[in-house]
Amino acid sequence: MSALTNTSSIISQLLELLGADKVSTNTSVCDAHSHGEAYHGANMPEAVIFAESTQDVSAVLKLCHAHRVPVVAFGAGTSVEGHVTPPAHSISLDLSRMVDILEVNSPDLDCRVQAGITRQALNTFLRDTGLFFPVDPGGEATLGGMCATRASGTAAVRYGTMKENVLGLTVVMANGEVIQTGGRVRKSSTGYDLTSLFIGSEGTLGIITEVQLRLHGVPEQISAAVCQFDRLDDAVTTATEIIQMGIPIARVELLDDVQMEACIAFSSLTEFQPLTTLFFEFAGAPAAVSEQIALTESIALDNNGRSFSWADTQDERNRLWKARHNAYWAIKAKSTGKQVISTDCIVPISLLTDLITGVRQDIEQSGLYAAILGHVGDGNFHTLIVTEDTQEGYQQALDLDRKIVARALALGGSCSGEHGVGLGKLEFLETEHGSGALSVMRAVKAAFDPHNILNPGKLLPAGPVFEG
Amino acid sequence: MSALTNTSSIISQLLELLGADKVSTNTSVCDAHSHGEAYHGANMPEAVIFAESTQDVSAVLKLCHAHRVPVVAFGAGTSVEGHVTPPAHSISLDLSRMVDILEVNSPDLDCRVQAGITRQALNTFLRDTGLFFPVDPGGEATLGGMCATRASGTAAVRYGTMKENVLGLTVVMANGEVIQTGGRVRKSSTGYDLTSLFIGSEGTLGIITEVQLRLHGVPEQISAAVCQFDRLDDAVTTATEIIQMGIPIARVELLDDVQMEACIAFSSLTEFQPLTTLFFEFAGAPAAVSEQIALTESIALDNNGRSFSWADTQDERNRLWKARHNAYWAIKAKSTGKQVISTDCIVPISLLTDLITGVRQDIEQSGLYAAILGHVGDGNFHTLIVTEDTQEGYQQALDLDRKIVARALALGGSCSGEHGVGLGKLEFLETEHGSGALSVMRAVKAAFDPHNILNPGKLLPAGPVFEG
Repeated sequence: MSALTNTSSIISQLLELLGADKVSTNTSVCDAHSHGEAYHGANMPEAVIFAESTQDVSAVLKLCHAHRVPVVAFGAGTSVEGHVTPPAHSISLDLSRMVDILEVNSPDLDCRVQAGITRQALNTFLRDTGLFFPVDPGGEATLGGMCATRASGTAAVRYGTMKENVLGLTVVMANGEVIQTGGRVRKSSTGYDLTSLFIGSEGTLGIITEVQLRLHGVPEQISAAVCQFDRLDDAVTTATEIIQMGIPIARVELLDDVQMEACIAFSSLTEFQPLTTLFFEFAGAPAAVSEQIALTESIALDNNGRSFSWADTQDERNRLWKARHNAYWAIKAKSTGKQVISTDCIVPISLLTDLITGVRQDIEQSGLYAAILGHVGDGNFHTLIVTEDTQEGYQQALDLDRKIVARALALGGSCSGEHGVGLGKLEFLETEHGSGALSVMRAVKAAFDPHNILNPGKLLPAGPVFEG
Repeated sequence: MSALTNTSSIISQLLELLGADKVSTNTSVCDAHSHGEAYHGANMPEAVIFAESTQDVSAVLKLCHAHRVPVVAFGAGTSVEGHVTPPAHSISLDLSRMVDILEVNSPDLDCRVQAGITRQALNTFLRDTGLFFPVDPGGEATLGGMCATRASGTAAVRYGTMKENVLGLTVVMANGEVIQTGGRVRKSSTGYDLTSLFIGSEGTLGIITEVQLRLHGVPEQISAAVCQFDRLDDAVTTATEIIQMGIPIARVELLDDVQMEACIAFSSLTEFQPLTTLFFEFAGAPAAVSEQIALTESIALDNNGRSFSWADTQDERNRLWKARHNAYWAIKAKSTGKQVISTDCIVPISLLTDLITGVRQDIEQSGLYAAILGHVGDGNFHTLIVTEDTQEGYQQALDLDRKIVARALALGGSCSGEHGVGLGKLEFLETEHGSGALSVMRAVKAAFDPHNILNPGKLLPAGPVFEG
């Protein structure tokens, strides 16, 4: 029986099992699940299942496992690397109805949520508790999706990524078995770290249905500032020295002159020049914050930074960070009808100036319009590349991306700091990890999903499997 | 051919391959490798191999793999759970000659070391760089052993455990293949997190030969203080509130009255009473440290803490922390000729007072002499149980340990915060993780080491293997 026949045959069984409310073959629903926010093409799923519980997910996987039907999990669809694009003849398993907050343990700074809730919805719920969840990727992503891609964002320099902020998971395995990983304790030395193995596994090892998260206390004081530089290397050196001094800065974001020009126009930041810019956030107890600010200001001035502009009120702070978060839309707005493609490289911070300088040369040679911005405290940056919205334009962007990735990998970096592999970064994995590590990853995949029904074709390029 | 015959037959091949300097069947050498610092019995290896390079380890594993001979890695032998006790007819693979510091990247706060170097030797080397490695288990452990057991210590409350402080590894797989995991970047979203999978795998998935570590800047100011309490719950509440307030305390250690009495005698801490005590360390920039101290002092006083005693000079600080680190020896000194056995439970911090109160009742019922101390900021504590140095005494301690672990697991805790499973905690794994997660762990083990030659019998109790 072909994969297509298998998939069609189980849709009626899924309808019987879950009811019509949770199973859709409607064209517009399938279309909405045919792609993420990526440029990796689209593919229609045979059906979309709206799971409402771990039991639903388990039932779907049991059936798909028995019939060897591929399954791809879908949350908010904010992936930019093609993670949620359905494989051929597959089911898209939508978890966006699983939004329950199952427990909040304020004294222990942890909570448990279903995988379909977004980080914004969680933080809205937590608003009166004095706690918050700090990991903030650009999109309105779900916590499950953030786990699956090992997401981070602007606050990772202070609070870490999903890797450091997930204590445990409920996972449905390929055959429908439900397992628990980790727990509520802050550390443990018992057994293999399955939680970390599922974090970043992009739906290829199991479907995450519940997440135990670390929370953090809302800092007593938060201050934000902006400093502009005539030279890129001065800005990067400033960020580097802040990290080296151990200043526990809450955020330090770089926008190059191209990006800043677009942000000034899009977000009316008329008080600034189109120059290389650092956005800072300081958070903590008042004296500590004052001290961090004084140290940071002196480092910036020593590196030829212009004077600090302060965002004293929460409104001003929100305006600044909204402008930063709208960086993509600022570039998009300057490029009507064109496509904007983001790279996601990361290197050790000491190599960042060299890398970005090289990337600027690559951009110039390409003749394309492109801006650079990033989480400079982590050594992670994005190049937003604008091209015609055609296959040829896409190829042009891809050519530039390949040059940028090659530079990063030659410096011991990674092709993705936070977006993940999906389909978009598959070609770089062997250069980055080596054939040995990849063969071991394939052995994990084969052990967890021997029939290759979990998001097949993502994360791991084809190749030999470690045999031990 | 029996396992014994296999093992004997390869010793001559190992001699030929590596030379007499690296292969020993000497009785006293084998005896020194027959156990850790544990009470789990001893077993002589057939031979001890002193590896001097990743290539040596690879050569040994290739041969052992071909002949199905079990191998157990050995570092400093400081395991307290029987990790390094050789399985039947096995080779002990000693990495303590692999002590090279391969690179120190000061601007990026990272370094690469061979697995056999101890944390103390590394920190001695780093002394003039302004950097240090913070993870500090009690023993003079090797970094490889600390990776293998996912070790932590008194500084984990601020800096995290080995999980948060290892960026990448070189690992020799069961068949001798050498792979690289992770790298130098501070985060990455590409591929399965093999680094975290090997951290805590206790030599059962591969042999770690090199470690890329995160380093931290030595704080500008460090202050230590001691505060005593009449009641245990007040001390625990103080620690809890410090964590909840987000005070970035460097260390907060609890010693109960029994432990404190022993430490006063052993370390001449005559200025203190035999009462429940918290040891604090504050670290950072000066104003931040002053602020942390003021906040902590007010929390302690609100919870009926007596006045703070300050250790102002480095000598006084060293004296205090040495007394804390000698807690085991303080108990040992009061118990000449007896054995001291340590438990290692961890629970969410809000449950710690309940748990310790219960444990105190268990101790009283047992009639044994036992002290409680621990990394209270993480919810992790040790009970040092003293019994006669006989099989019967060992059983008494084990009975008490089982009661303590049962209490911790009933509260959603873990049977080991930092010592690992080894042989000592095997019996608790199924209750802690559930049969589902254990079967998945066994699938990882089967995929990485299908012939079960890597430290067989440790970490995972026998049982079904997930089949996907």
